[in-house]
Amino acid sequence: MSNQVPRRLRLGMVGGGDGAFIGAVHRIAARLDDCYEVVAGALSGNPDRALASGAALRFEPSRSYTDYREMARLEAARPDGIDVVAIVTPNHLHAPVATAFLEAGIHVICDKPLAISLAEGEALARLARERNRVFALTHTYSGYPMVRHARELVAAGAIGDVRLVHVEYAQDWMAEADKQGAHFQANDWHNDPRRAGPTGCTSDIGTHAFHLAGFVSGIQPGELLAELHSFTPERVLDDHVQVMLRYPNGARGMLWSSQMATGCENALKLRVFGSKASIAFDQENPNELWLTPQGGTAQRLTRGRVGGAAASHATRVPAGHPEGYLEAFAQLYRDAAACIHAVQAGLPLPDAAKDLPTVIDGVAGMRFIDAVLASHAAGSRWTAL
Amino acid sequence: MSNQVPRRLRLGMVGGGDGAFIGAVHRIAARLDDCYEVVAGALSGNPDRALASGAALRFEPSRSYTDYREMARLEAARPDGIDVVAIVTPNHLHAPVATAFLEAGIHVICDKPLAISLAEGEALARLARERNRVFALTHTYSGYPMVRHARELVAAGAIGDVRLVHVEYAQDWMAEADKQGAHFQANDWHNDPRRAGPTGCTSDIGTHAFHLAGFVSGIQPGELLAELHSFTPERVLDDHVQVMLRYPNGARGMLWSSQMATGCENALKLRVFGSKASIAFDQENPNELWLTPQGGTAQRLTRGRVGGAAASHATRVPAGHPEGYLEAFAQLYRDAAACIHAVQAGLPLPDAAKDLPTVIDGVAGMRFIDAVLASHAAGSRWTAL
Amino acid sequence: MSNQVPRRLRLGMVGGGDGAFIGAVHRIAARLDDCYEVVAGALSGNPDRALASGAALRFEPSRSYTDYREMARLEAARPDGIDVVAIVTPNHLHAPVATAFLEAGIHVICDKPLAISLAEGEALARLARERNRVFALTHTYSGYPMVRHARELVAAGAIGDVRLVHVEYAQDWMAEADKQGAHFQANDWHNDPRRAGPTGCTSDIGTHAFHLAGFVSGIQPGELLAELHSFTPERVLDDHVQVMLRYPNGARGMLWSSQMATGCENALKLRVFGSKASIAFDQENPNELWLTPQGGTAQRLTRGRVGGAAASHATRVPAGHPEGYLEAFAQLYRDAAACIHAVQAGLPLPDAAKDLPTVIDGVAGMRFIDAVLASHAAGSRWTAL
Amino acid sequence: MSNQVPRRLRLGMVGGGDGAFIGAVHRIAARLDDCYEVVAGALSGNPDRALASGAALRFEPSRSYTDYREMARLEAARPDGIDVVAIVTPNHLHAPVATAFLEAGIHVICDKPLAISLAEGEALARLARERNRVFALTHTYSGYPMVRHARELVAAGAIGDVRLVHVEYAQDWMAEADKQGAHFQANDWHNDPRRAGPTGCTSDIGTHAFHLAGFVSGIQPGELLAELHSFTPERVLDDHVQVMLRYPNGARGMLWSSQMATGCENALKLRVFGSKASIAFDQENPNELWLTPQGGTAQRLTRGRVGGAAASHATRVPAGHPEGYLEAFAQLYRDAAACIHAVQAGLPLPDAAKDLPTVIDGVAGMRFIDAVLASHAAGSRWTAL
Repeated sequence: MSNQVPRRLRLGMVGGGDGAFIGAVHRIAARLDDCYEVVAGALSGNPDRALASGAALRFEPSRSYTDYREMARLEAARPDGIDVVAIVTPNHLHAPVATAFLEAGIHVICDKPLAISLAEGEALARLARERNRVFALTHTYSGYPMVRHARELVAAGAIGDVRLVHVEYAQDWMAEADKQGAHFQANDWHNDPRRAGPTGCTSDIGTHAFHLAGFVSGIQPGELLAELHSFTPERVLDDHVQVMLRYPNGARGMLWSSQMATGCENALKLRVFGSKASIAFDQENPNELWLTPQGGTAQRLTRGRVGGAAASHATRVPAGHPEGYLEAFAQLYRDAAACIHAVQAGLPLPDAAKDLPTVIDGVAGMRFIDAVLASHAAGSRWTAL
Repeated sequence: MSNQVPRRLRLGMVGGGDGAFIGAVHRIAARLDDCYEVVAGALSGNPDRALASGAALRFEPSRSYTDYREMARLEAARPDGIDVVAIVTPNHLHAPVATAFLEAGIHVICDKPLAISLAEGEALARLARERNRVFALTHTYSGYPMVRHARELVAAGAIGDVRLVHVEYAQDWMAEADKQGAHFQANDWHNDPRRAGPTGCTSDIGTHAFHLAGFVSGIQPGELLAELHSFTPERVLDDHVQVMLRYPNGARGMLWSSQMATGCENALKLRVFGSKASIAFDQENPNELWLTPQGGTAQRLTRGRVGGAAASHATRVPAGHPEGYLEAFAQLYRDAAACIHAVQAGLPLPDAAKDLPTVIDGVAGMRFIDAVLASHAAGSRWTAL
Repeated sequence: MSNQVPRRLRLGMVGGGDGAFIGAVHRIAARLDDCYEVVAGALSGNPDRALASGAALRFEPSRSYTDYREMARLEAARPDGIDVVAIVTPNHLHAPVATAFLEAGIHVICDKPLAISLAEGEALARLARERNRVFALTHTYSGYPMVRHARELVAAGAIGDVRLVHVEYAQDWMAEADKQGAHFQANDWHNDPRRAGPTGCTSDIGTHAFHLAGFVSGIQPGELLAELHSFTPERVLDDHVQVMLRYPNGARGMLWSSQMATGCENALKLRVFGSKASIAFDQENPNELWLTPQGGTAQRLTRGRVGGAAASHATRVPAGHPEGYLEAFAQLYRDAAACIHAVQAGLPLPDAAKDLPTVIDGVAGMRFIDAVLASHAAGSRWTAL
Repeated sequence: MSNQVPRRLRLGMVGGGDGAFIGAVHRIAARLDDCYEVVAGALSGNPDRALASGAALRFEPSRSYTDYREMARLEAARPDGIDVVAIVTPNHLHAPVATAFLEAGIHVICDKPLAISLAEGEALARLARERNRVFALTHTYSGYPMVRHARELVAAGAIGDVRLVHVEYAQDWMAEADKQGAHFQANDWHNDPRRAGPTGCTSDIGTHAFHLAGFVSGIQPGELLAELHSFTPERVLDDHVQVMLRYPNGARGMLWSSQMATGCENALKLRVFGSKASIAFDQENPNELWLTPQGGTAQRLTRGRVGGAAASHATRVPAGHPEGYLEAFAQLYRDAAACIHAVQAGLPLPDAAKDLPTVIDGVAGMRFIDAVLASHAAGSRWTAL
């Protein structure tokens, strides 16, 4: 049989121990399409917790590490060492961990934001290119079939020239008070510039909104104007950011992102208005995409019915059987696997690479953060990206 | 029977002849609650058209005027002269027409924007106060029961301290091409600064968005930052405006308005996020209002079910029997009638006055336009209102 | 000017005094398009209340009657007597009142159900035909532009052969307890067979559902099977009815109607599935109609955008400016006015007649009620209509 | 660490080879929560296809069987033999395959309908009980967190006494024509009574609707009345079924199911109206559940926000991160795993058992099918279940 099934890639994980939401999400995503087995990890710096967390994932005890550098070194040396590492640490560790594994020749799947400075991000991009390693960045929402379909529609000219881009990402969890009455996570790493980087909400979810807007619209703003804000005195970093955008083709846009938007769960919404039609996507209803021609009737395009190569590639079950966040996440893992297999075989990157966010997108996100900071510092002046 | 029914007020109209959409809307609104009879008008400057338009409305021939000044003078002199005039002309005539009727002692119901300059607007406000005449401004959307309920909820503290205000008003009709291939109404008065005033989209619908945001949130921005734009070369005035807002209490906001938003009909949407809950209203679904407490379950409040004095006052039919735009418009007429009867009787303004937009709101709208123009001219600098 | 505006028709009203919801609705509907003036009424059998109710409507005292027979006689004798009477009484009076006015040569606009027996209804149909008088029946929901558009689409073959008809009309107001703890209106005329007729919910709202299904689908069931039910012991008549339908062309259908459907306001919903497409209408969102082709993308058709002669005829304001229940009601009044003017002028009925529900629809509704009763009595046996 | 992670259960599969949708779904569901490894299968009766399909799933060649009886025997004999078999064959094989594996002491996860006759189903129920083996039936939709929450709400009395149950399951795929112009799958096993059983749509999706209604409402009808229908002459079995229901407590209900409902994808919808509130669930929007109190405001309950033991147990990611069909399916697998571990350890069934559909639900579904057939044959007579 010529169409041989590829082996499961061996996946290691740094961060994501006991109870961390995002670590579990990565592992489900890795398993979902049966392209990976999770075999090793530096899940905690505490030896007992590292061992226990590893045991819960059925690692061999020797593959539960407490130090990511040691993990990179030892796994690279094993004949059955990991092919790829998933990095699910606080932001400040993204760059050093990714560097260690790239230098050990190991592919990387990393949470966003890419790093805590543009310089770090650019160094990672150089390193990944030099070592010819896959570096996937988990801009999860680009894994949704209807987001990919939107991107394909726009690229094919279905909405004409892009004129307006409106994107927002609103959550409310930072508005919650904890048991001591302080606002939730005011004291956790999201509020510590040494670990989160120079922005809060902006890097945490603003970068997702920024990526999604570019991913679908196919255009990048040339200038932005921004204001950061924090609604609670105990918060050092921004919990709200609002931005206006200008694009080289004359398009205009707005982006806002907040973790104080009372009553919002995970409200990432994108609208792109072109000269011929507009599209709208709401992450909380990811199985549909709205397409409305100028002056005409709104159409509700649905995953599984819509056809199109990009959406079909990212679809597992038929129309009317909803897919969700985990499937979108799994899509990034599946596409990354296709890329890693190609690199391992010395082949050019496959089609699956074209929609997979990488270190390049991560660098663009860092530039966005830098421009937001600069504009805000200058009293919301228009600032080139 | 003590609870005597008040007589119908006699209403005149300036503008709004043959086929003009907004004239017909005013007349339906005036009739709906049986508070008015339309008896006179200066519907056109052309004598034949004025007479024909008046005949179609069953005016006595002598009450079809071609000149609004003459109409003001003659109607004021009649024992059965009009109580109130509705002004539905292009923008540049609002101030002179209103002035003529106020000076003749006649109450005014005027389309927005109030005028084409802040000075004009302020003069009207002074004149209306001096003459003690009712001056209603048709910010129609404030007539919806659920908008009034939202205002009442916010005022009662139901959402806590206001933190974020997001308002948008998107239409697509200017993106249509006319038969000659030019963009629709590029050549009509909306694109002529002498008749429309110094802004296009901003005064036409941006002022509605601005009014709605203040009407519901109960707060007014202290500063704004804006960018105007026109997407077609033949258009002199803006067809798109985007604005960021800062409020004295620390709240932040965004406002945008466009007549080039492909696929949008009349998409006026408001969201206000407070420290305890958020509310959302969509003009195209005006019988509902969403209220979502922090961290909790979204509630779909409906007209007729929600109770509350303000909503009940503005409601005609029970829950599940949708009311719409004409009823909202009629509400302004009904509230104006209550105010006019009070003034005529020498009584203080009734409760109905508290939600009725007036010349004061019109002046605020003119200040908004001025601040947008100033900020835009300064490269989107923060500008005090 | 040849295109002369027709005079306002003089409208009388029987029933609908002080505080009755439906009387006020009729009067707003009559006023909205300026085709009528309400000048006379038998609003109450009590002389004082009749006079007071009439005064509140600005009737001349002599035109406030306490007896509908006297009103018919005296109005018919006046040179300025009413052209048409609106009947908004309890059901048992529909037939005698309509008979009195038809016999006096006066046109009729009557609430549904037409009568309390099929025989009564058929007699009315004969009388209206013999006297050549307009007899409009207020199946209000057929006045919505998108309902008329749906009818036009189906008639034009846009959905292919009709296969499935699903209609439901659910309310919850009978599930409310009154101040004495009894269920609301258990004691009012809706629960009294002498005044309501032999069914409760079935005639009150089930007939609306039945009419809407036939109006849009263009087909009538040949057989039905039904079960009536009452959920509270103190209720004599049904508060719930469920029905299965068979159509001569092989189509199948279901109809249910309930006034005990907890949480429902006025939830009248229709879906028609054809061989090529399906349509769906929800009375609580009347400005839209869904059209979904087989295997394809759902389209949200909107009033004002959709075009089409039937919808345009019934539309007052542009897309995005919601119309509602009162406008639908006014549409029946406007269409009835066009018919009455034609009859008065000795002309054939105008186009406006084709979508106006009449006494013929009322007879069909009475047949529906009879078939439901017969099927239920026979243990839900299939019963020919 | 006392809280040891249980080993992955070894899963075999009968049916579901190359390209079969439902086989792939079962395998994703099994992998998602890392409770299973798929190690063996009788995926095809054709030796080459069986081997190739097994290789694609990375089975050892010796564990790709062509005969399910041999598979049951040999796997039972292996020390590392499968713990549980997933049966994804056409309906007529469910009972013989399940019997073979139960007799070999192997647990069963089986597609619905349970069998092609009630007798077969009852025999399976007896056998599973005698052998003390877990027998999960994949009524997938009961795995949704919001469905389980609905069940919990109803059981806790949140909606009061159940009065009305409305459930529908509408698809349109049978309305599609294939390349030869025949209706899709008219020739496949779904239309062959020897393989599908005595009903088509009724057993294929009607049983899902029936199960969901009982699962959530907590009550079972005592009688039903039904009509089967086929809209295309080439179809032997029903593609449409409509049913009325009577419950012992006086509640009423309607159920319909169609595979000819033009434009419907996988439209399974449930509404339950109680004396205090109603709930509504739509499978195509599974992250929300609507709860509307009598006379009050509709609440949109969301997965992740709603709390509640049942929903939390079935939830993987936070509110606003949509879960879908595969997660619901995985939930059945996860709950089945917990039950199998308990049986293997000689422990009583865990809490996870209480929401897991089993052979008992399968027998109830067979009784439903039998009653539908009997009622239909008797001209839609009321028939006891």
